[in-house]
Amino acid sequence: MGKKVLIVGGVAGGASAAARLRRLDETAEIILFERDEYISFANCGLPYYIGETIKDRNKLLVQTPEAMKARFNIDVRNNSEVISVDAKNKKVVVKSKTKGTYEESYDYLILSPGGKAIRPNIPGINSEKIFTLRNIPDTDIIKAYVDKKGINHAVVIGGGFIGVEMAENLRDRGLNVTLVEAAPHILAPFDPDMVVIAEKELAENGVGLILGDGVKSFEEIGNQVQITLGSNTKINADIIILAIGVSPDTAFLKESGLAFGPKGHIIVNEKMETNLEGVYAVGDAIEVVDFITKQKTAIALAGPANKQGRIAADNVAGLNATYKGTQGSSILKIFGLTAASTGANERTLQRASMPYQVIYVHPVSHASYYPGAIPMSLKLIFNEEGRVLGAQGIGYDGVDKRIDVIATAIRFNGTVDDLAELELSYAPPFSSAKDPVNMAGFVAQNVLADRMNTVAWKDIEKDGNEDTMLLDVRTELEFSNGHLDGAINIPVDSLRERMNELDKNKTIIEYCQVGLRGYIAARILSQNGFKVANVTGGYKTSSMLHY
Amino acid sequence: MGKKVLIVGGVAGGASAAARLRRLDETAEIILFERDEYISFANCGLPYYIGETIKDRNKLLVQTPEAMKARFNIDVRNNSEVISVDAKNKKVVVKSKTKGTYEESYDYLILSPGGKAIRPNIPGINSEKIFTLRNIPDTDIIKAYVDKKGINHAVVIGGGFIGVEMAENLRDRGLNVTLVEAAPHILAPFDPDMVVIAEKELAENGVGLILGDGVKSFEEIGNQVQITLGSNTKINADIIILAIGVSPDTAFLKESGLAFGPKGHIIVNEKMETNLEGVYAVGDAIEVVDFITKQKTAIALAGPANKQGRIAADNVAGLNATYKGTQGSSILKIFGLTAASTGANERTLQRASMPYQVIYVHPVSHASYYPGAIPMSLKLIFNEEGRVLGAQGIGYDGVDKRIDVIATAIRFNGTVDDLAELELSYAPPFSSAKDPVNMAGFVAQNVLADRMNTVAWKDIEKDGNEDTMLLDVRTELEFSNGHLDGAINIPVDSLRERMNELDKNKTIIEYCQVGLRGYIAARILSQNGFKVANVTGGYKTSSMLHY
Ligand SMILES: Cc1cc2nc3c(=O)[nH]c(=O)nc-3n(C[C@H](O)[C@H](O)[C@H](O)COP(=O)(O)OP(=O)(O)OC[C@H]3O[C@@H](n4cnc5c(N)ncnc54)[C@H](O)[C@@H]3O)c2cc1C
Ligand SMILES: Cc1cc2nc3c(=O)[nH]c(=O)nc-3n(C[C@H](O)[C@H](O)[C@H](O)COP(=O)(O)OP(=O)(O)OC[C@H]3O[C@@H](n4cnc5c(N)ncnc54)[C@H](O)[C@@H]3O)c2cc1C
Ligand SMILES: CC(C)(COP(=O)(O)OP(=O)(O)OC[C@H]1O[C@@H](n2cnc3c(N)ncnc32)[C@H](O)[C@@H]1OP(=O)(O)O)[C@@H](O)C(=O)NCCC(=O)NCCS
Ligand SMILES: CC(C)(COP(=O)(O)OP(=O)(O)OC[C@H]1O[C@@H](n2cnc3c(N)ncnc32)[C@H](O)[C@@H]1OP(=O)(O)O)[C@@H](O)C(=O)NCCC(=O)NCCS
Repeated sequence: MGKKVLIVGGVAGGASAAARLRRLDETAEIILFERDEYISFANCGLPYYIGETIKDRNKLLVQTPEAMKARFNIDVRNNSEVISVDAKNKKVVVKSKTKGTYEESYDYLILSPGGKAIRPNIPGINSEKIFTLRNIPDTDIIKAYVDKKGINHAVVIGGGFIGVEMAENLRDRGLNVTLVEAAPHILAPFDPDMVVIAEKELAENGVGLILGDGVKSFEEIGNQVQITLGSNTKINADIIILAIGVSPDTAFLKESGLAFGPKGHIIVNEKMETNLEGVYAVGDAIEVVDFITKQKTAIALAGPANKQGRIAADNVAGLNATYKGTQGSSILKIFGLTAASTGANERTLQRASMPYQVIYVHPVSHASYYPGAIPMSLKLIFNEEGRVLGAQGIGYDGVDKRIDVIATAIRFNGTVDDLAELELSYAPPFSSAKDPVNMAGFVAQNVLADRMNTVAWKDIEKDGNEDTMLLDVRTELEFSNGHLDGAINIPVDSLRERMNELDKNKTIIEYCQVGLRGYIAARILSQNGFKVANVTGGYKTSSMLHY
Repeated sequence: MGKKVLIVGGVAGGASAAARLRRLDETAEIILFERDEYISFANCGLPYYIGETIKDRNKLLVQTPEAMKARFNIDVRNNSEVISVDAKNKKVVVKSKTKGTYEESYDYLILSPGGKAIRPNIPGINSEKIFTLRNIPDTDIIKAYVDKKGINHAVVIGGGFIGVEMAENLRDRGLNVTLVEAAPHILAPFDPDMVVIAEKELAENGVGLILGDGVKSFEEIGNQVQITLGSNTKINADIIILAIGVSPDTAFLKESGLAFGPKGHIIVNEKMETNLEGVYAVGDAIEVVDFITKQKTAIALAGPANKQGRIAADNVAGLNATYKGTQGSSILKIFGLTAASTGANERTLQRASMPYQVIYVHPVSHASYYPGAIPMSLKLIFNEEGRVLGAQGIGYDGVDKRIDVIATAIRFNGTVDDLAELELSYAPPFSSAKDPVNMAGFVAQNVLADRMNTVAWKDIEKDGNEDTMLLDVRTELEFSNGHLDGAINIPVDSLRERMNELDKNKTIIEYCQVGLRGYIAARILSQNGFKVANVTGGYKTSSMLHY
C-alpha cells in the first residue's frame, strides 16, 4: 500500500484534490473527511435552487460518497468532523456521527475546510428567521421557509456576491426584497463608478437598496423580525438572509501548530504547503498572493479552490506544481445584467500605493448593425508603463468574454499595447472589427501617449471654476435632451468652423455621450492651441452616477 | 499646410487609416479615393442584409463621404478609381466618374484596395444568374434578384466563410440551398474532424452539401443555370453565388514598381511600408506574417485590416507602430452553431513541418447544473514544449469566449500550463469552476507528461489488429445504445474489480463518451501494468466523424 493521505473537507478543494490524487496514484490510501452529510456539491448553485431556476435538487450533488468510491476508490467519510490535528505524531482526531471519536494517522494531510458565514454579535442575531447560506442543509432550510405561505418580505444583509444573488433569487420567487449594505456601495470588487450600474439594475427589478447603513439590531416582533439600522431606520422582514462574508473555518486547527494570517487564514507557500511537514491547505481557508499587488489576500472563489486542490494533489504525488496568485476574477448575473471584474480595482491599488490610470469605454457587444447589439461599460486600469492592472465590465451581453480576455492578458503581464493588438475572432453576431478589448487598449494608449488629456467626473464636479469652460460636443438634439449645467454646445462636426467661440485662455472641459467624440474634439482643439480635457466616460457615466 | 496623404480604398483599412491620421494630425491634407459610390460600409453585414436579419439598408453604411468630411475633414472622393501610381514622381492617376482623369501628387500614399472575388475561367461563368458578393452594389443586385418571384433554388459555390454565410442567409429566405465545395470539407481554417460538426448543422438546417466536387461548367437552361460538377453530377439553380475566395485587387499597381508576393499581394514590412518610399499598404491586398509559422500568408479579415490601417496612419504621422503578424482568429455563425478558430490548424502545421500534438475536450458552456448548459467541442493544438499553436471550437454557446481567451494566450506565446492556470471569471450562468479553457490545458498537460497515452480515431480505424483489445468503459446502457465493433464493455466504475478480464499482453484501446472517463480508466490500467491508449474525443468524436 502506498502513502496514506487524509483530506479534510469534501467539496471544491477537497474533492478535487482527492480525484486528482487518485488519477496520479492508484496505490495511495485516500480518506476524505466531511463534517456534513454531502460532499462535492454545487455551492455556487445554491441560490439558484432557492430561486427555482435550478429545479432539481439532485443537480446540486455533483458527486456522492458512493460514486467517489466507485470511480476513484476514495474512502469518503461524511458526517465525520476532524476536530484536531496532531502534527507531531501525524494524526488527526475525528468525531463521527456514527462511529464516535477516533484517530487516523497520515503521511500527508490536505486541508480544505472552507469558510463559514460570518454571524456578528448583534443583538437579536439568534432569531430563527435569520439565515446564512453555505451548504445543502442551509439551502434546504431556507427553501422550505420561503416555500411557506405568508413569507413576503425578505431582507438581505450584505451586498456581496451571495447577497446580490439571494436578492435576485428571492425576487424571482415573488418576494419583496430589500438589500442592506453597510458600505456606500455593493459588490466590493467594483469601483463605485461602475457598480452604480448594477445598483440601478437591482432597483429597476424591484429590489430595494439601502446603502451606507449597517445593522444595529434585530428584534422579533410578532411573526416578523424588525431590523434597526445604524441610521435608526427600521425595516420588518419575514425572512432575513445574512450574507456579510465568510471567515476561514479553521478553529479546529488552533492547537495544531499551523501558522495563520491576521484573519485566521492558513499560511501556505506556492506549492500549497503549510509550515507543518506533510500538511497542505487550499481553498477559502488559505491566504494567497494577489497577482497584481503581490500582497497577501484571501479569495473565496471556486475556481482557485479547485485549482489549488489539484496543485496540492500534484505535490503530494511528487510532481512540482505551483499556484501563482489570484487575480480575483469574478462574475455575477444581476437579473439581465452581467458584472465581471479581474485584477485590482482603484481601492486595492490605492491601499497598495500603486499609481494607476483609468479609462472607460462603452462599446457595443457586437457589430452595431447586427440585431441585438447593446452597449457595455468597460473600465480599464493600468499603470504608467502600460501594464494592465485590472478591468471591470458591466452590461447585458458579451461582458464575460471581454473580462476573461483581459484576465488572460493580465496573467501574462500584458500591456495596453497588447490589448490594442490582440487578434480576436470577429463576425457581426459576435464582436466588432475592433473588439471592445482592442478599443479599451486604443483609448489607454492615447491617454498614456498624452494624446488625450482626460478628467474624471468626480474631479470636475469639485473643480469647476472660472479658469475652465464646459463644452458639450454632442448634437443639438442630445444637448437639448439634457446636459451639464453651464455647458455650451458646439457639436464636434462643427468644431473646426466654430472654435473661435472658445477662449484660448481657459481650460476647455469637454464631453460627449461616451467619450469617443470628446476624444476627437480634444484632438482638434489641442492641435489648434487650446488647453483641453475630455471627460472620461462622457455624459453617460455622469448620468449613471446620478441615476 | 502639412503633409499630403492619399488613401486608395475607402472601407475597412482605408477609412480607418484616414480617421486615425486625422486624429493624429489636424494639418495633414487627406484625400480618400474610392472607386465605388460607397465608403466605409459593413462588408461583413452584407450576407445578413440579403438574409433580412439586418432589415435596414442604411445600417450597412457606417460612414458617408459627408460625415467623414464633417467629422474628420477628409476629402472623400468616391466614384474615383486610382488607375496607376507613379512612385518616382510621387503621384497617382485618378479616373473620376464626374471629373474625368487627373493626377494627384502625394507625400504619403496608403493603399487599401482590398480583394476582389475570384471568377475562374469556367465555361458559362458569365451567366447573369451567377453572382459574387463584395460590396453594396453586389448586395443590392443579389437581394433584388432573391426578392423576385420564382427564385427557389440557390447553389452556393465555395464553402468558405462567405459561402456558408450566404447558404444560411438564403435558407433563411426560404430558398432551397445547395452548397458545393471542391475540397473534401468546407471552412478551411478547421480540420476535418471539427468541421464535420458544422457540416452536420448545415445539413440539419436543410442546406444540401456536396463535398469534394468542383464545378466543371455552367449552362443556362431555360430560366435556370445547370451546373455540371467534376463528377458529372448536374444541379439546376435559379441563382448561383460564387464564393470561392478573393484575390488582391492590385492590377492597377502592376507598373508602379511595388513588390508583390506570389499571389499578387503587396509586400510590406512590420510598419506596413512597401518597398516604395512613402507608400504604405494594408488589408486584404497585402502579405503578412503568420504569427505561428512565421511564414508569409494573406488574411482577408476585417480586424487585421482595421488595425493595419491604424498602424499605417501612426507611421505616416511619425509614431512607431508595428503589426506583429496574424493568428487568423476567425468566427462564424452557422444557424444555431458557433464555429471559431485561432492560430494554426493541423494542415498548416504539416505544411510548415512543425510537429504538434492534439487534444479534444467536450466541456459544457457553463455549470452543468444551471439551465442551458450545452457541450462544445474544443480542439487544442500544441507542441512538445507545451506552446499553444492553435485552437478550434464548435458549439452552441460560449465558443467565442473560449477561442478569444486562447487567442489571447497564443499572442503571449502561452503554454498549456498557462491555460491550466488561467483565472477566468466563474459563476454558474457563465462558466464552470474549471473553465473549458482550463480543462483543455489540463488534458494537454496530461498528454505532454505521458500521463495519458492517446490515440486518434483515424489511427485505430486503420490500425486495429490482433495485438490490441478494444474496451468501452462507458455504462452498460451507453454501450447498448451503440458502440464500436468488437469492443468489450467494462464500465470505468467497475474496472478495478474486473481488470482480470483484460489481457496484459495486448494494448488496450479504450474509449468513453468524450474522453474523461477514458482518461481515468487509462490511469487505472496503466498503473496496474496494462498497455493502454485512450481514444481522444471519445465515442462522440467517432460518431461525429460518421454522422
Ligand atoms: C451560496 C454560494 C455561492 C457561491 N457562488 C460562487 C460563484 O458563483 N463563483 C465562485 O467562484 N465561487 C462561488 N462560491 C464560493 C465557492 O463555493 C467557494 O470558494 C469554494 O467552495 C471553496 O472551496 P473549499 O474547498 O475551500 O470550501 P468548501 O467548498 O466550502 O468546502 C469545505 C468543506 O469542508 C467541510 N469542513 C470544514 N471543516 C471541517 C472539519 N473540521 N472536518 C470535516 N469537514 C470539514 C465543510 O463542511 C465543507 O463542506 C459560492 C459560495 C456559496 C456559499
Ligand atoms: C460578404 C463579406 C463578409 C465578410 N465577413 C467578414 C467577417 O465576418 N469577419 C471578418 O473579419 N471579415 C469579413 N469580411 C472581410 C472583410 O470585410 C475584409 O477583410 C476587409 O473589408 C478588408 O479591408 P480592406 O480595406 O483591405 O478592403 P475593402 O474593405 O474591401 O476595401 C477596399 C476598397 O477599395 C476600393 N478600391 C479598390 N481598388 C481601388 C482603386 N484602384 N481606386 C479606388 N478604390 C479602390 C474598393 O472599391 C473597396 O471599396 C467579409 C467580407 C465580405 C465581402
Ligand atoms: C467607420 C470607420 C471610418 C471608423 O474608424 P475609426 O474612427 O478609427 O473607428 P471607431 O469609430 O471605431 O473609433 C475608434 C477610435 O475612437 C477612440 N475611442 C473609442 N471609444 C472611446 C472613448 N470612450 N473615449 C475616447 N476615445 C474613444 C479609439 O481610441 C479610437 O481612436 P484611435 O484610433 O485614435 O485610438 C472605419 O472603421 C470603417 O470604415 N469601418 C467600416 C468598414 C469596415 O470596417 N468593414 C469591415 C467590418 S464590417
Ligand atoms: C466533482 C469533483 C470531485 C471533480 O473533480 P475532478 O475529477 O478533478 O474534475 P472533473 O470531473 O472536472 O475532471 C477533470 C479531469 O478530467 C480530465 N478531463 C476532462 N475532460 C477530458 C477529456 N475529454 N479527455 C481526457 N481527460 C479529460 C482533466 O484533465 C482533469 O483531470 P486531471 O486533473 O487529472 O488533469 C470536484 O470538482 C467537485 O467536488 N466539484 C463540486 C464542488 C465544487 O467545485 N463547488 C464549487 C463550484 S459550484
